[in-house]
Amino acid sequence: MPVSGFKRLLMPLFLALAITGCQALPPAGDRTALMGTGDLGLIIERASGSVLVINTTRHSVLSRVTGLGDLSHASVVYSRDGRYGYVFGRDGGLTKVDLLTGTIAERVIQSGNSIGGAISQDGRYIAVSNYEPGGVRVFDSETLAPVADIPAAYVKPNGEPALSKTVGLVDAPGNRFVFSLFDADEIWTLDMTAPRPAIKKFGAGDAPYDGLITPDGRYYIAGLFGEDGLSMLDLWHPGRGITEILPGYGKGEVKLPVYKMPHLEGWAMADGRAFVPAVGHHQVLVADADDWSLSGRIPVQGQPVFVMASPDNRQIWVSFAHPKNDVVQVIDSQTLEVIRTLEPGDAVLHMEFTPRGEEVWVSARDSNRVTVYSTRTLEPVATLDAEKPSGIFFTSRAHTLGL
Amino acid sequence: MPVSGFKRLLMPLFLALAITGCQALPPAGDRTALMGTGDLGLIIERASGSVLVINTTRHSVLSRVTGLGDLSHASVVYSRDGRYGYVFGRDGGLTKVDLLTGTIAERVIQSGNSIGGAISQDGRYIAVSNYEPGGVRVFDSETLAPVADIPAAYVKPNGEPALSKTVGLVDAPGNRFVFSLFDADEIWTLDMTAPRPAIKKFGAGDAPYDGLITPDGRYYIAGLFGEDGLSMLDLWHPGRGITEILPGYGKGEVKLPVYKMPHLEGWAMADGRAFVPAVGHHQVLVADADDWSLSGRIPVQGQPVFVMASPDNRQIWVSFAHPKNDVVQVIDSQTLEVIRTLEPGDAVLHMEFTPRGEEVWVSARDSNRVTVYSTRTLEPVATLDAEKPSGIFFTSRAHTLGL
Repeated sequence: MPVSGFKRLLMPLFLALAITGCQALPPAGDRTALMGTGDLGLIIERASGSVLVINTTRHSVLSRVTGLGDLSHASVVYSRDGRYGYVFGRDGGLTKVDLLTGTIAERVIQSGNSIGGAISQDGRYIAVSNYEPGGVRVFDSETLAPVADIPAAYVKPNGEPALSKTVGLVDAPGNRFVFSLFDADEIWTLDMTAPRPAIKKFGAGDAPYDGLITPDGRYYIAGLFGEDGLSMLDLWHPGRGITEILPGYGKGEVKLPVYKMPHLEGWAMADGRAFVPAVGHHQVLVADADDWSLSGRIPVQGQPVFVMASPDNRQIWVSFAHPKNDVVQVIDSQTLEVIRTLEPGDAVLHMEFTPRGEEVWVSARDSNRVTVYSTRTLEPVATLDAEKPSGIFFTSRAHTLGL
Repeated sequence: MPVSGFKRLLMPLFLALAITGCQALPPAGDRTALMGTGDLGLIIERASGSVLVINTTRHSVLSRVTGLGDLSHASVVYSRDGRYGYVFGRDGGLTKVDLLTGTIAERVIQSGNSIGGAISQDGRYIAVSNYEPGGVRVFDSETLAPVADIPAAYVKPNGEPALSKTVGLVDAPGNRFVFSLFDADEIWTLDMTAPRPAIKKFGAGDAPYDGLITPDGRYYIAGLFGEDGLSMLDLWHPGRGITEILPGYGKGEVKLPVYKMPHLEGWAMADGRAFVPAVGHHQVLVADADDWSLSGRIPVQGQPVFVMASPDNRQIWVSFAHPKNDVVQVIDSQTLEVIRTLEPGDAVLHMEFTPRGEEVWVSARDSNRVTVYSTRTLEPVATLDAEKPSGIFFTSRAHTLGL
């Protein structure tokens, strides 16, 4: 069996390792070479209001884009073509970043305080969920011109009209958005296909604080701050209303102080099981995805924040809350055992898998570093310098419902 | 609720409809404008040895690339960055097409007769399965330089050494390829992570003729030409060897002449059920994805070839074999009923969903036309002229295991 050229093929890897950590970023806007966008991404630099444009094939930083405002808790969605990232800032800023030129294409301050957003299935609309003044605003993805303003109006128990904070905003099939009303205890769907946006309202549990949608866009699940359990809406059968799942799940089972409520977006579904961060416990919970009954508890080294399955569902990667947040643990989804404890740096905030799952990028805020691991060897293959990095978002999200 | 700008937002759609059918394709290679690659794709023009570069946002043809040889039964995989499509021709040609410039970047004649290929999980290797001289050849995705030659050597029952045709080649997690040996009744895995490619061999059923891998890269399933049933390999537990599933499935149940063996790649998995084209019957079979038992038969208007689930798993789209191949039927995955019969043109050959599932592109070879349907309304939203179009492949495949 003739085999040749392996050494040569390894060279790009060595080169990539050699150039990581390079500080000399090219100035924004001087890029004219043609480039595919499928292996690009953005890393949030939360303290400096900037983002890094990165390349996952070369493990390299292409440019730094500045002037994005308050990026604590920022997130990103992508245009259909993967060229533009829409960055949702905490200060209500919505910034359209051009990854090819490393510049800001459009930017608006759309509210006083926002908490994430989504892009519609057809790519034409960007929706943002707001704390102040609450509600959801929808923008043209091309120009960021306003398209619709959806106040989250409700009536308090005492009869007074009020406006609710909105959270857990995701896109859903049929060009819909789904989000939760923290103050109103409701889940709303917003249909953007009609001549006017059409809203449907569903009563949820007490104080939904975050939400996720399953990868096929069928189930919307909201975490509850005010009671145990989770509220689930089956978007294939909205007439059936909200179902309560995992009734014992939540703060009620807490025996330790909760340093951070777990993120819902990171929930892992693998092999018919859901892997869920326990609230306040040093455990990952295992639920049967068919009936959402609790089937197991996996001991881990701290309070889990993100619990994410690798794209091949073989591994569950877990990040943790302060003060045990300098460690990532990897669980085998078959044996349910921790197979590796990694130390990517201080204050690990986020993880992002490459779309086919060969590598995962991990940000360590207080080490000013992003580490790339091989999911096969569980060893680091590259590190990149970044200023207080938090969220990592690859353009493959453009092709994924709910991301 | 203020709503504004909807008419303006509809304009791009009208423009897109107005320019479809445009014949004046720009000459290849004159493209310098920056462009994202996430919403691009290739359409095979099988009779003329050419491909169209298309844009799914604008429903437009960007360029035509010629000189690709015999493209009957051609297929495409994509580089990690979505810029390059690797086109596998029937004549053993392997062509690397640059979608941004509309030109051929590299081209080799790698065998006398080939039948598809795959790109490795890390994007570094292109593998091609061959009829003549059989076996699998692996190339550097950057240069198309040869990396490995894997003859499919086996020993005939009479003791003579022989070489087998290979079929059903797919990529799998762990930078592996998996394929079937038609003449040797075996399934092989090829691990590209070692210093030398490492092969493992598994005995399969009689004459495997095609294969698929489930979206998480766990199960490889081969269709059998020589007997009923299918051969399945669990890549998480390869030591358990091959399992026979759907034992009654295949030619043995045929009561009609089989005009075309169904494609396996198109198999749909939705809501815990697999939807499978019956061989020679006017039926789509429904199997329980847990134990692969047959749970239902859905009557359709002809012999199904492709049976594909929309990305949200709500619809199953079915194309058919000659002579009833001018029709596509849409099945509701919940009610298991045909909800629409569409007539996209003569000799429908392939269907491709946009990655978030809002639209599906359908090629009609003998009508020289590709029709784009909305999955929501099931109405056509655009048509494009193409010369004898067959396969349609979007760059989102770059981000999908097994495609």
